[in-house]
Amino acid sequence: MKVGIIMGSTSDLPVMQEAIDILATFNITTEVDIVSAHRTPEKLFDYGQNAHTRGINVIIAGAGGAAHLPGMVASLSPLPVIGVPVKSRNSIDGWDSVLSILQMPGGVPVATVALDGAKNAGILAAQILGARDSEIQKTILEYKEGLKQKVIEGAKSL
Amino acid sequence: MKVGIIMGSTSDLPVMQEAIDILATFNITTEVDIVSAHRTPEKLFDYGQNAHTRGINVIIAGAGGAAHLPGMVASLSPLPVIGVPVKSRNSIDGWDSVLSILQMPGGVPVATVALDGAKNAGILAAQILGARDSEIQKTILEYKEGLKQKVIEGAKSL
Amino acid sequence: MKVGIIMGSTSDLPVMQEAIDILATFNITTEVDIVSAHRTPEKLFDYGQNAHTRGINVIIAGAGGAAHLPGMVASLSPLPVIGVPVKSRNSIDGWDSVLSILQMPGGVPVATVALDGAKNAGILAAQILGARDSEIQKTILEYKEGLKQKVIEGAKSL
Amino acid sequence: MKVGIIMGSTSDLPVMQEAIDILATFNITTEVDIVSAHRTPEKLFDYGQNAHTRGINVIIAGAGGAAHLPGMVASLSPLPVIGVPVKSRNSIDGWDSVLSILQMPGGVPVATVALDGAKNAGILAAQILGARDSEIQKTILEYKEGLKQKVIEGAKSL
Amino acid sequence: MKVGIIMGSTSDLPVMQEAIDILATFNITTEVDIVSAHRTPEKLFDYGQNAHTRGINVIIAGAGGAAHLPGMVASLSPLPVIGVPVKSRNSIDGWDSVLSILQMPGGVPVATVALDGAKNAGILAAQILGARDSEIQKTILEYKEGLKQKVIEGAKSL
Amino acid sequence: MKVGIIMGSTSDLPVMQEAIDILATFNITTEVDIVSAHRTPEKLFDYGQNAHTRGINVIIAGAGGAAHLPGMVASLSPLPVIGVPVKSRNSIDGWDSVLSILQMPGGVPVATVALDGAKNAGILAAQILGARDSEIQKTILEYKEGLKQKVIEGAKSL
Amino acid sequence: MKVGIIMGSTSDLPVMQEAIDILATFNITTEVDIVSAHRTPEKLFDYGQNAHTRGINVIIAGAGGAAHLPGMVASLSPLPVIGVPVKSRNSIDGWDSVLSILQMPGGVPVATVALDGAKNAGILAAQILGARDSEIQKTILEYKEGLKQKVIEGAKSL
Amino acid sequence: MKVGIIMGSTSDLPVMQEAIDILATFNITTEVDIVSAHRTPEKLFDYGQNAHTRGINVIIAGAGGAAHLPGMVASLSPLPVIGVPVKSRNSIDGWDSVLSILQMPGGVPVATVALDGAKNAGILAAQILGARDSEIQKTILEYKEGLKQKVIEGAKSL
Repeated sequence: MKVGIIMGSTSDLPVMQEAIDILATFNITTEVDIVSAHRTPEKLFDYGQNAHTRGINVIIAGAGGAAHLPGMVASLSPLPVIGVPVKSRNSIDGWDSVLSILQMPGGVPVATVALDGAKNAGILAAQILGARDSEIQKTILEYKEGLKQKVIEGAKSL
Repeated sequence: MKVGIIMGSTSDLPVMQEAIDILATFNITTEVDIVSAHRTPEKLFDYGQNAHTRGINVIIAGAGGAAHLPGMVASLSPLPVIGVPVKSRNSIDGWDSVLSILQMPGGVPVATVALDGAKNAGILAAQILGARDSEIQKTILEYKEGLKQKVIEGAKSL
Repeated sequence: MKVGIIMGSTSDLPVMQEAIDILATFNITTEVDIVSAHRTPEKLFDYGQNAHTRGINVIIAGAGGAAHLPGMVASLSPLPVIGVPVKSRNSIDGWDSVLSILQMPGGVPVATVALDGAKNAGILAAQILGARDSEIQKTILEYKEGLKQKVIEGAKSL
Repeated sequence: MKVGIIMGSTSDLPVMQEAIDILATFNITTEVDIVSAHRTPEKLFDYGQNAHTRGINVIIAGAGGAAHLPGMVASLSPLPVIGVPVKSRNSIDGWDSVLSILQMPGGVPVATVALDGAKNAGILAAQILGARDSEIQKTILEYKEGLKQKVIEGAKSL
Repeated sequence: MKVGIIMGSTSDLPVMQEAIDILATFNITTEVDIVSAHRTPEKLFDYGQNAHTRGINVIIAGAGGAAHLPGMVASLSPLPVIGVPVKSRNSIDGWDSVLSILQMPGGVPVATVALDGAKNAGILAAQILGARDSEIQKTILEYKEGLKQKVIEGAKSL
Repeated sequence: MKVGIIMGSTSDLPVMQEAIDILATFNITTEVDIVSAHRTPEKLFDYGQNAHTRGINVIIAGAGGAAHLPGMVASLSPLPVIGVPVKSRNSIDGWDSVLSILQMPGGVPVATVALDGAKNAGILAAQILGARDSEIQKTILEYKEGLKQKVIEGAKSL
Repeated sequence: MKVGIIMGSTSDLPVMQEAIDILATFNITTEVDIVSAHRTPEKLFDYGQNAHTRGINVIIAGAGGAAHLPGMVASLSPLPVIGVPVKSRNSIDGWDSVLSILQMPGGVPVATVALDGAKNAGILAAQILGARDSEIQKTILEYKEGLKQKVIEGAKSL
Repeated sequence: MKVGIIMGSTSDLPVMQEAIDILATFNITTEVDIVSAHRTPEKLFDYGQNAHTRGINVIIAGAGGAAHLPGMVASLSPLPVIGVPVKSRNSIDGWDSVLSILQMPGGVPVATVALDGAKNAGILAAQILGARDSEIQKTILEYKEGLKQKVIEGAKSL
């Protein structure tokens, strides 16, 4: 059981690290790589076509600007692909990243999360692995309980 | 193995029907219901808290305007929730639906698909059920092969 | 006579403090709490269903991103709910907060104020309490007179 | 106890009629008038300065494009003012109406509802009148119960 | 021959100063004042109704957010009104200021310039005064010649 | 005393006709021509450089999409130039027309009116001609009085 | 000398036909095909890697929504790629198509034209072929002369 | 063989320098100049009409705000024109620059690249010069190989 995490550039790593970290706290194995749709198209092809045969179960793909990585991997793989729009340096306030990941044509979905929402991508990957696994569902419920406790403590500190 | 499909209003059904139909072609059982975050909050609570104990594995939630249904179900359930932004009658060109589903805070992801992208929501649900199931992955690959053949035939007809 | 002020996270407090402060200058009692739609949904339910029975007359709810708190409280309570869109860290320039609070469906209004407009939320709460109370209306008129005097003094200093 | 409903032009009436109708079902008296900020500024002034002395408790103001009516009435009156952005003929998709009503400066709030959301403006006016009146709160709760029943019936008809 | 320059708040002065300065270089008299549509509506009325009888020929009005000052003065005065959208602190990237000044309804124009474009407002005021005055037109042509020379010098320095 | 009205294409005429008509009701002479910045650049140059020597006092220029006509004429002429953003067929909801006319750089203003706001362009041209002419100011005041009467009659008809 | 014209779907043909037609009037050979980035990724790869070895000199690629075709071909080919954003059925007003084609990262340009601007894509392809060919430049200048004559005739017809 | 690089102001140079630099690494001659559409219209005319007779093969034009330089040069020259939208100081988040360059009317294309995408403009100019020149195509393929190697090294460093 493994989550493949890819991103278009090492400059996306500070954002994408949150996905790696949250999956680590769930004890879910991750495999991290740089795959650029525009600069390493052959690697993209290889990655998309073979991820599911290499034991990967869910793919998280982060990219900024005209972000084609998540959609192109989704076109090549039968696995669920989670897209993380990254607000890169020359992005127009993030709208380009969001729309070029979200607005996929009929037939090839990308599960898009919020702008720079890599943490949620990690949690979603865990939920996907847990869709038919009540053990993981229990872990998610415990995680949610933790979130709740933090809010309640915050409320007390007012 | 079952996909729960909910929507905020019967007026969302024409859009959401595409999710029901595509899952039927994949022979995946669906359970369809109307759950309004704003008009039936108790039903929303019950649905979100119990879906995973009732045998549902993935939730697809469609809503328009200030679309709170997908995010609220996601806050209550350990299951992966797919959000479909619906371009409803008074929507501001769909931006309200998209942003109020996509931009979830850290901790509570919604797997958002394109505006009115219910078909892709259905395919994504199948991919999620197939994340650890090579039979379903084979079905998805066959579906993709079908998409490819249609494009190739279209190209020939030019 | 009491105004309930809630927000989704302690990180919203710097913005929401302006509502607390302006109501203090009007000598109107406030009750402040953290209620997260996505992390404490049970507390949200309890809050929304019981605020009016606990002596609260108006609710001010502030939240950022996919901001569901104001709308969900409005779905549960018969009280007027004022929504404050907060420009949170990962917000797309505030558009997500604004649209997910403003664009409520028919039947469940939220009285939305400007982005980060907590001060105006406080004033609006006072005006609501004063809708049938000429004493409060007099206070509001005096407050407006003060605003006017400050502008006139500013003009003199040119 | 009376709600003043004004709009910038007779062409806004089809939208604003929903506010009039819903308040009628709540048995709340309304007074309807055309007041144009840009074409009848004297009437605007007179309206804003005197509404509260004439027995009006809440003002609903609808306007489109560069919509100044709600904000200008709010600048003149101590009453709570509800603004309805109307998507008029030359509006840029409604954004102009929404932003010129919502983004009021500190000191002068307008309780903004959704684009063309006159029905919600009417409900909000009732909630404001009921902020300190448990009878009206009961009416609102009954109205909400009606909304819920309609959804439940819709769900049954699936 | 005089240009009236007004703004909604002293905080707009750093932007509006450019209009004052450029008109000074054209030797055109200006009269500067703070007039807030929302905090000093009576002063707004007095200003709009009497500017043309006090010897003012053109009005420049700058404001931010839901910027009603230019449009309201235009509704009251027969003079040409130039609107300067100011990107104020809580503005949504300036869109609110731009749209609430630009999108005036038929019958009441505001001559809108670029966001924070007070310098251009001053030049436009001079051009308006010079519409039927060839002396001023000569001054404008000389000013344009100066702009050209600066570009040509800049090009040489490459 | 003459207003020059130009537009980029005969397809802009239905919109621009409103400027011609309103100026006719003010008894102000107009001269109408098609001048395309992109297809007849020499004509544009000739027009911009000579309009003021041919007896024209104000220029109204309408164009859609990447609308360069108003700004380019303004760069060539000492006269005040009023820009009318036209919502042409392939325009992105009018935003392209609005922004490419409004956002002129420092030194070269265009007096921009609302999207498709040719009527207001005509009124503004009259106000500009009347900036130093109390007869025209009287005509404008009478026109405004007419607008007011129509609103008051509309109000009576409710 | 040949222009390759590809599009993501036969539904893009009505828009893309304008590129085919204008190149025909310039007597430039075109080769038209359907290549879907998301449904025929292998064909995309083959097309991008071999177009320049098959005698194609310029590529025009049209696509809608999350439009990855132009950028992905550009990543694979050394040829200049012209991207045509198509306003497809579920597009969010064309913004998704525009931004996912335009906002390419450093290293991999796409020459983007206006929304649905296939005619201009054809002209640009001719200009590219003519960048070092004065015969083609002459053809372009004659085409421009034709555009000018049509405007001048339109002006006469006023 | 020469690329003409022009920009509206010396303040655009920091952005445009990337185009100069990348073309230098390709050993392609550039000629750099400041040409302001709005401040030096005669120079613009001269440049556009004569660039192709002076041995220039491709034009790169960068400008911000209401950016008319690329489109106006394209209207005057038979050469391919690449437009670089520059995010200038008073730009509304770059949207004005992008739309006023991209949305050219039928007949006069501008090859638009990403916001501040001068580097890509340089690469595109090289690709245009190489459209019929296999030597340049080889250089581009080597450049792409270099991009790929950097990504692969980045991936190793993870």
